Order: sequence, then structure tokens, then C-alpha cells
Amino acid sequence: MKTIGFACTSADVPLEPFTFERRAPRENDIVMEILFCGVCHSDLHWSKNDWGWTVFPAVPGHEIVGRVIEIGSKVTRYKIGDHVAVGCMVDSCQSCDQCRKGEEQLCREGNTGTYGGFDRFTGDYTLGGYSKHLVVREEFALRMPDGLDLAKAAPLLCAGITTYSPLRTWNVGPGSRVGVIGLGGLGHMAVKLAVGMGAHVTVLSRTADKAEDARALGANALLVSSDEEAMKKAASSFDLIIDTVPVKHDLNPYMPLLDVDGTLVIVGQIGPVAEPSTVPLVLGRRRIAGSPIGGIRQTQEMLDFCAAKNILPDVEMIRMDEINHAFERMEKADVRYRFVIDMASLAAA
Amino acid sequence: MKTIGFACTSADVPLEPFTFERRAPRENDIVMEILFCGVCHSDLHWSKNDWGWTVFPAVPGHEIVGRVIEIGSKVTRYKIGDHVAVGCMVDSCQSCDQCRKGEEQLCREGNTGTYGGFDRFTGDYTLGGYSKHLVVREEFALRMPDGLDLAKAAPLLCAGITTYSPLRTWNVGPGSRVGVIGLGGLGHMAVKLAVGMGAHVTVLSRTADKAEDARALGANALLVSSDEEAMKKAASSFDLIIDTVPVKHDLNPYMPLLDVDGTLVIVGQIGPVAEPSTVPLVLGRRRIAGSPIGGIRQTQEMLDFCAAKNILPDVEMIRMDEINHAFERMEKADVRYRFVIDMASLAAA
Repeated sequence: MKTIGFACTSADVPLEPFTFERRAPRENDIVMEILFCGVCHSDLHWSKNDWGWTVFPAVPGHEIVGRVIEIGSKVTRYKIGDHVAVGCMVDSCQSCDQCRKGEEQLCREGNTGTYGGFDRFTGDYTLGGYSKHLVVREEFALRMPDGLDLAKAAPLLCAGITTYSPLRTWNVGPGSRVGVIGLGGLGHMAVKLAVGMGAHVTVLSRTADKAEDARALGANALLVSSDEEAMKKAASSFDLIIDTVPVKHDLNPYMPLLDVDGTLVIVGQIGPVAEPSTVPLVLGRRRIAGSPIGGIRQTQEMLDFCAAKNILPDVEMIRMDEINHAFERMEKADVRYRFVIDMASLAAA
Repeated sequence: MKTIGFACTSADVPLEPFTFERRAPRENDIVMEILFCGVCHSDLHWSKNDWGWTVFPAVPGHEIVGRVIEIGSKVTRYKIGDHVAVGCMVDSCQSCDQCRKGEEQLCREGNTGTYGGFDRFTGDYTLGGYSKHLVVREEFALRMPDGLDLAKAAPLLCAGITTYSPLRTWNVGPGSRVGVIGLGGLGHMAVKLAVGMGAHVTVLSRTADKAEDARALGANALLVSSDEEAMKKAASSFDLIIDTVPVKHDLNPYMPLLDVDGTLVIVGQIGPVAEPSTVPLVLGRRRIAGSPIGGIRQTQEMLDFCAAKNILPDVEMIRMDEINHAFERMEKADVRYRFVIDMASLAAA
């Protein structure tokens, strides 16, 4: 089927309207009309070919919420009219140990990215959610729970699950002492989700001017990392620190904050980490870990959790043709906390 | 009481005979005649003031095995003639949450090192096991199990517990896939202990010439880290890697070897780690951790485990007056795998 979207045709030009073909639905596919798509920092990296493997024209977008408008002959989970969502992946091998455990993001063959991946049957290059329609196998679609605001919920599909998953892996619950570094798209969700799980949540910020923002998100405290006295006083007082800083940075000031067996989890793909010291690691039996998105089952669990707890990202709605300006603002961290594209604006673009 | 030992009087001179005073035993102290003392790489760092906080004259030694020759009035655990051991610490606050859990090595106030610490009552600088006698509170002495070779067992008190503890923290047992980097004093114990726990153990070495040594220690396999094909084939095949390399090095070649949720544990205090990449950490949900020695209860468990499984370090016995030459050889990794001083040689020194 023909659809429209926004694509970049090379790394150094803005995104522009783009007409392209989506595959005819296979028997286990659903066809979605995309209603909303969140704008992730990865979309920007992808468009600019920052990772070096973008194939152009490239259509970004992996925080996708929409409505089922057509279903394949063997689709059982969804019917026309259902509100559904798609995150960062659209397929996996479905047979390895990780897929069988519901950890498709860790598929032994590699999962198929929503954009920049290769269809496992045709080899076609996948194109993302900055578009009017998406065709996806039903196993990789999520059900939008009743009552969850469809527009605001879009960023849950990447920013939400990327922070929810480590909170679950490290068993956060009532009594957990959680720190969050970086108050962007991911960081603000880490705060809301950890608060929703009953943890005591502290935002770590270089400056004190984030106090009001932290409070507004439900955080219990702000720790100013440039305040040496406060940092010393906070030694060994965290079970888990979620580090959402999207650029290379020094972990060493944060490591002593972890209690024995505590973990600092990096959720951003930032390349090399500035040399961590073994002193706090060894002496305090502390840990550094990485964590990707979650599996499909956990992503559904996260959506249901957010609906039950009324947790939603703080978003700024934009029109599709405002995307290039949004990218510019995102580069300056000038958004609280996530842009969401209203795809109804696309026809008019 | 007066005793004799070997001390260094400054960073740039060899160790030499040294007569000094041990405290009169307090009511909960035992007095040990030291029979054997292992030679740890830390002893060398300490003597050379590599960490910058050595106070001279300094008596190293924290792998201490001996015999009780006197007891304080309230000592209940030991009687004269018992074979006992002392490791890296001789005291802690005994009241914080970590001490109450039996994790005195992680005492909130800091434990008191066997050498280079400060007595919690008198403030006196502690002097280690390169000496004829030691006075220590009974809570920090270990019971030597019957049948364990006293001379060979000495290195268990540091090299043994430092590798045993992470194997327990990360639940190694039958079916665990354990890698060991570095075949020195710690590495060779990591192999023997992990094998004793029923794990499948692989030695990671830069060169293939370690194959026979690895086999002799009981390892199931050798993985040559300079063999790119072999390393690629071994991707995601380890649950735990114990990294005993005593100098700054690059973890990045090893990280992809870990399976999902696998951990590389650094047990050496090596200062900064060369910049680890977030790519294998985030994509594979992998972890880097540090681990110190274990607590007193776990150290006793380790000694009992070694006695039950007949696990002993491979040692080379030396006389006390050979210590400076032993240090030179240790710097060239010319020892399989640990020197132990026969303290009977001290009177003749």
C-alpha cells in the first residue's frame, strides 16, 4: 500500500515529505493508521547518520500509537478499530532462548528494528513511524489500555520501556532508593515510573535549579552533584541509579553514592564511558550495567502499569512539518520532556 | 610483647629484620605464633608505597597461619595450641548493618587492615604477618580445618577469599560458565575454587602456551584472547568472568563474551579501567562489578570448603630473608603461583 511520511534523503538535509510503499499485509500482520509518534533522540542520530549505518531515504520514529485498519487472515489478537502501539522493534527470530523467554529485544539473531532494520522475509529496509501507516506482525504490536491518553502515551514505547525495564530487572519497589541522572525524555520517565513503583526517588542534577522540575515529576529529593558536601553525605545511599545522560561522561562522582551491591545502569548508547575507577567498585562491591529496551510482554506490562497508575510522559505536541525545528530544539535539550507528532497534521503537510 | 619481623623503613630500600612490640593481649585477644605467611602483590605495593599512604616502618603480610600460644581472659572460641589464621582485616565496628550481616570487610566505618590500619582502641598503626607473632581479637581469627596443609593454605586468606567471595555473590555452581582472566595468585585460585563448585571453567589468556597450566589447575578450557575467531565464537557464552589482571587494561574485548545479565568482576585494585564501551553493556544487558575480600563467616566457609574439597594453592616456599628476591620475581610474574614464607626461618634471619 502507498503511504506518506517524512524522510531524510541524506545526512545533511532536513526531513521532508516522502511517499513510499508499505508491504501488503501478511497473514499475521496488522495494518495501523498511525495517530501519534514520539520523537526520540535516536531519531535525530539516525537522520544525521551519527552511527554510520543509516541507509537513505530514512524514515525515523519508534514511539508509535495508532488504530488497526486492516488485519491479515490469521490475526487473532487484534481487530479493526483497536488502539495499538509499536515500539523499537517489529520482529525477532521467535525461537531462540531469549525470544522464548519474552526477551525479544535480546534475540540471539538480533531483533528487527522498527526503522533501519531488514525485514526477515524480504530483506527490505524498515521505515519507521514518521508516517501515516505501518504494517507489523501482530506479535510486535501492543494493546493500548483503555483510558491511557493516546497522544501522551507515545513516548512510553521507547523512553518508557527503556527506563521501566531496568527498574524491573533490579527489583525496584517500596523501600528502594533510586537515583536518576539526567532529566530528559528518559530521565523524566525513570522518575515517574520509579515513584509509581513506590521507590524513594532522587534526581541528580549538576545545578539546584532542577528542584522544582524534580518535585513536579514526583521525585522525593534533588541531589546537586556539584555540591561536594551533599555528595559526600549521600555516600552509599542508593540501591540503583538510572543514568540517562546521552553523551560521554564521568561515572566516578556517582559510584560512591551506591550502597553495597548497588548498580548504576546506563540506558543510553553513548559509546565509551570515561575511565571508571576500581576503587569504589571493588571496595564497595558496586556495579555498572547497561540495559536496553524490554521485551514485548514487559512492554505490555509497562503500558498496563502506566494506565493503572495514571503515569504519562510530559509531552509537547507538534505538527509533522515542525520536525526539523523540533530536532534543533532537542539538540539544545529545549523540550519538556518529549515531542510527539500529531500524525493528523501529515495530510496537510 | 617483643617480636621480630621484616619491615621496610622507606619506599626505596629492601625489607630488613625489625624488632618491635606487639600489644599485650586484651581480654578477647589471642596471641598467635605465626608459622606461615603468604606473599600477596599488595605486600609489594605497600612496601613500595605505590598507593601513597604507607607509614614506615611497614611490616606487610595478610595471609597468616599460626598457632595460638596465649589467650585473653574472655576468649571462648580458641584455646592454646589451636591452628588459626588471619587474613586482610583484624577488626571492624561490629555494630553496623554490614558487620551484623557478617560482611565486616564492608564495615560502614571501614575495617581495620591487618597492616596499614589503625587499632580502634589505641590508634596504633597495624603491622602485618611478616613477623613471628600476631595479637588479634578472636572474632577476626579463623579456625584452620583439620587436614588442611598449613603452609600451602596461607594464600587462601587473601587470594582464596578474594576469588571465593565473588563466586558466591554471583551464585556459581554446577552449570555456571565461568571465565578467569589472569593466572596469578588470585587467578589460579579462582580456577580451582570455581572448578570445586562444579562450574565449567575457562582460562582466558593472551597466548596459547597457558593451556597446560590451565589444565593442571582443573580448568575445562583455554580461550586465547588474541584469537579473534575464537573470541567471536565464544560470544555470549559466560555467566561470570573473574578478572584478576593486576594492571590497567581494556575490558572491551571481554565484554561480548558475557551472556545476557552476565558480569565481569574485577577483584584487583587497579585504579582506572580503560574506557569501557556502552555498546556491549547496553545491547546485551551486561555488567561490570568490583568485589573485595569476604567477611569472616564466609572466610571460614571458604577454608572449610577447601578442606572438604582438598583445594590448595600452588605455592613456592621461601625463607624470610628471601623476601626481597621474591618481590623481584613477583614483579616479573615469575612464581607459580604464590610465595609462602616459612616463618621458622625468621629466627635464623
